[in-house]
Amino acid sequence: MAVPPSTYPCHLLPLFLAFFQGALLLFFALFVTYDKPSAEDTILVANQVYSTFPFFQDIQVMLMVGLGLLLTFLPRYGFSALTHNFLLLNFSMQWIHLDLHKLLISEFAAVTVLISMGAILGRVSPCQLLVMATREIPIYLTSEWVIVTCLGVLDVGGTITIHVFSCYFGLGVSKALFRATQKPLHPKETPTPSSDLMSLVGTLILWVFWPSFVAVLCQPGDAQHRAILNTLLAMSASAITTVVASSLLERDDKLSLGHLQNGSLAGGVAIGVVADMALPPVAALALGSLSAMVCILGFRFLTPLLGRKLRLLDQCGIHNLHGLPGIQGAAASVLAVLVASKDTSGSQPSQLSPARGNASEVLEGLQRGPTLFTLVQQ
Amino acid sequence: MAVPPSTYPCHLLPLFLAFFQGALLLFFALFVTYDKPSAEDTILVANQVYSTFPFFQDIQVMLMVGLGLLLTFLPRYGFSALTHNFLLLNFSMQWIHLDLHKLLISEFAAVTVLISMGAILGRVSPCQLLVMATREIPIYLTSEWVIVTCLGVLDVGGTITIHVFSCYFGLGVSKALFRATQKPLHPKETPTPSSDLMSLVGTLILWVFWPSFVAVLCQPGDAQHRAILNTLLAMSASAITTVVASSLLERDDKLSLGHLQNGSLAGGVAIGVVADMALPPVAALALGSLSAMVCILGFRFLTPLLGRKLRLLDQCGIHNLHGLPGIQGAAASVLAVLVASKDTSGSQPSQLSPARGNASEVLEGLQRGPTLFTLVQQ
Amino acid sequence: MAVPPSTYPCHLLPLFLAFFQGALLLFFALFVTYDKPSAEDTILVANQVYSTFPFFQDIQVMLMVGLGLLLTFLPRYGFSALTHNFLLLNFSMQWIHLDLHKLLISEFAAVTVLISMGAILGRVSPCQLLVMATREIPIYLTSEWVIVTCLGVLDVGGTITIHVFSCYFGLGVSKALFRATQKPLHPKETPTPSSDLMSLVGTLILWVFWPSFVAVLCQPGDAQHRAILNTLLAMSASAITTVVASSLLERDDKLSLGHLQNGSLAGGVAIGVVADMALPPVAALALGSLSAMVCILGFRFLTPLLGRKLRLLDQCGIHNLHGLPGIQGAAASVLAVLVASKDTSGSQPSQLSPARGNASEVLEGLQRGPTLFTLVQQ
Repeated sequence: MAVPPSTYPCHLLPLFLAFFQGALLLFFALFVTYDKPSAEDTILVANQVYSTFPFFQDIQVMLMVGLGLLLTFLPRYGFSALTHNFLLLNFSMQWIHLDLHKLLISEFAAVTVLISMGAILGRVSPCQLLVMATREIPIYLTSEWVIVTCLGVLDVGGTITIHVFSCYFGLGVSKALFRATQKPLHPKETPTPSSDLMSLVGTLILWVFWPSFVAVLCQPGDAQHRAILNTLLAMSASAITTVVASSLLERDDKLSLGHLQNGSLAGGVAIGVVADMALPPVAALALGSLSAMVCILGFRFLTPLLGRKLRLLDQCGIHNLHGLPGIQGAAASVLAVLVASKDTSGSQPSQLSPARGNASEVLEGLQRGPTLFTLVQQ
Repeated sequence: MAVPPSTYPCHLLPLFLAFFQGALLLFFALFVTYDKPSAEDTILVANQVYSTFPFFQDIQVMLMVGLGLLLTFLPRYGFSALTHNFLLLNFSMQWIHLDLHKLLISEFAAVTVLISMGAILGRVSPCQLLVMATREIPIYLTSEWVIVTCLGVLDVGGTITIHVFSCYFGLGVSKALFRATQKPLHPKETPTPSSDLMSLVGTLILWVFWPSFVAVLCQPGDAQHRAILNTLLAMSASAITTVVASSLLERDDKLSLGHLQNGSLAGGVAIGVVADMALPPVAALALGSLSAMVCILGFRFLTPLLGRKLRLLDQCGIHNLHGLPGIQGAAASVLAVLVASKDTSGSQPSQLSPARGNASEVLEGLQRGPTLFTLVQQ
Repeated sequence: MAVPPSTYPCHLLPLFLAFFQGALLLFFALFVTYDKPSAEDTILVANQVYSTFPFFQDIQVMLMVGLGLLLTFLPRYGFSALTHNFLLLNFSMQWIHLDLHKLLISEFAAVTVLISMGAILGRVSPCQLLVMATREIPIYLTSEWVIVTCLGVLDVGGTITIHVFSCYFGLGVSKALFRATQKPLHPKETPTPSSDLMSLVGTLILWVFWPSFVAVLCQPGDAQHRAILNTLLAMSASAITTVVASSLLERDDKLSLGHLQNGSLAGGVAIGVVADMALPPVAALALGSLSAMVCILGFRFLTPLLGRKLRLLDQCGIHNLHGLPGIQGAAASVLAVLVASKDTSGSQPSQLSPARGNASEVLEGLQRGPTLFTLVQQ
């Protein structure tokens, strides 16, 4: 087994989970109930279901199937990757409120745990992962509240609040767990053709549904449309730039599958923070290209360096896929706001959708949504 | 080959299918035509397409890809499982009326055949499966009519009409075909890592799209929203309870993949019958947990017992996934109605959506649906 | 390696792509901008997103995941198939305008390249594929303009404009590249069980989402509903006829996986050109059955013949899946128009949705779309 003796003995897993599930049952029994529906609500809810549910299902496929498959690249760890991904997502999502939109917010919290898991994939027990989740989710919610509500940062695609946060959280956990022992790569940790193929299928599924992830909480209408198109542009540029950069860096012009699996998604990470802004479309293309380039360079030069100098274990290279492009996206958003504020069309940032987590405004937006259908005839 | 000499010689397959397809062509030529569209209809149809089609596509992925992959766990039977699943679904669905909603009803009829197939997977020829389908579908439609229309049972997710029915039908077929010969498990019937991985992907796809399956024929608005959320709660509780129960029952705290593949879906089976009711959410969680527990216990103790005592072959353990949780769900619905009728808020069951198969009421519901968009401004 | 020494040396790939991406960035920077949104537009855009986006995502899954997996049947070529499919789709789609509908049109252009690739799969370098794409897309756009705009042919599912065109284009490329050297099939080009399984999963995904592909640009309402149902009928008949025909043609009544992978999709190719017409439903069933039959017969007799006589390489059998059924569909549409013009209900063809590429009319159709929601109350 490639898995090291774990810090928390593994027969704690059922106890831990049973306790969690029991506590949750108790909490729901005591405190949670569906609201009384009113006539107004029925209208709102029907519209909400039809406009949100397809996006929600896309994101579920993305996280359950796409991300799960992406993590199967370690051949001996295929099942554990799929299983732990599934378990963590369920565990992290159950702290939910009873509403499709709040469910989305809990899903975003779960994503941070899944990303952080990437740093220590194949080296930890499920118990350790659950402990990590228990600690990461409250910290995520706090940091999201500080960034979005207190500082007023607009981050519709979660670039800063999700990707950058979870990357550095995961690297911190990795450093804490494997401080001294820089274990050499186990031969069983080398991808096989069949495990790499599954992983690539996972990448494709993530690539396809990424626009849903970025756009789901946008203001309906133009902002949402822009978020979809900007994400597509950025990811398309990423995919092509990845092929270019990887061919140039590898011997014999061969593509590295690891590069392709990660680089093609870098654009999606970077674009999140500015996706719904009225940028010139070339900015989305450029951001996608740059982020893929930085991601590939990170794999080629930075990861080995960090491993040697800091003895940092980063199994999936989350620093290259989530950390670097996330920082790039944040920088781009600062630039966008600076440019816009000098512009005559300086009112553009005010068109941005409310950022994630700010559920009340989102609901207001939806409440405005349905009336769209009736404006036509007036 | 693990497949035994079949009762119906297999070169009947093309003849059987050719006859079926020919008869269907003749029937369509003589009797079936599209309705003349009226202006009213156009409105209805456009709304129906936008509100139903995404759900319909989800269910198609679930049955074609998800269920197909789930059945590939027998390594030598991977292709046949995918192919027979595909063939049976097509065969059972072609007796359709020309309408997206009636198509859904025919799809539910097809599901019963696919579930029953689980009992005898890998041991029968496609001809035998088609004969089974030919007999099962009329019986299903009759039983569904008796349960829903005559007895007035509300079963929006098909817990009783689909899951319990098809489970016992399948077990009956299994008993009839393999009465005397309790063949030992063929070594080729043991799952391999790669076949188990594909099967797990199938489980994940089913897990993701299950809420669409339960909610598609609900009344638009609150009932549909509740059905989605209750299904999510139940399945999430199932997933976590499965990990708990399986770790406790297996040696070395190892998870059994078979348990995970089935137990995580048990909550979806059980919740169907009460999904759209205004239950306290804790009930959905509890039902999900209980059904997963019963499912795992069934795999561990009941299936070997039935095999020894009744010489009953149940290849996929459909009794544990569809039979036991289905009965549990039915019991829960009785409880829910009893509690609600004593309650002051005893009018809740009347908010339930019309049960499946009652297409005219569903259409009425949809006809009310579009007007939702216009109520806002009045 | 099964790949022959390529005509274009492969280290041109990064240069070629880098130049392309750079030129595109320049073009976007100079000429492309989002339109100023007006109040009217916001309404239009919100409706467009909710009605088009689920279809669009279906098509993305179909092309990225489904088609990608379908092409993995050559075991040594699994990665390249997925990767080249992904690369080509991105490359061909980036010449886009900034609109979800125009994006669809660019996606259809990309499809032609992916189909043509089938003829030469596993024998060419990515550079050669990109050169092919660079030449095929302008020719496709011209031919589509001639067929749809000049000749006024109605082809909602792209049967003629996409399938027939790309089939003969691909065969032409194959002939040009491998004129003299009829290389025998490399032993590594024989499918393995595991590569065939993945390919079958790809077929299933294509099968499931094909109705979205055909219906996405139809007139909302009845025409779109008919397109979905007709496509389902045709593909269902195809699937069953494929099993019949393949069992009869193969020894021991065994199904050929190659037949199943292709024949089940033939109905979708053929129905495209007439999908939204008010045909009697039996016509869709008959067309599906016939096209599957022709496809299987093509694989069994025509492909070996073409290989021997014309020394024509057709690795995936695109002539059988896209060429023959496409021609059949075109013939069916001629028949349909002739019959309709003699009929008293001769006005039916005028109900057809505007054909693909005619984006302005599509947008008008959508603009009429939203008002559907308000007609109810008048």
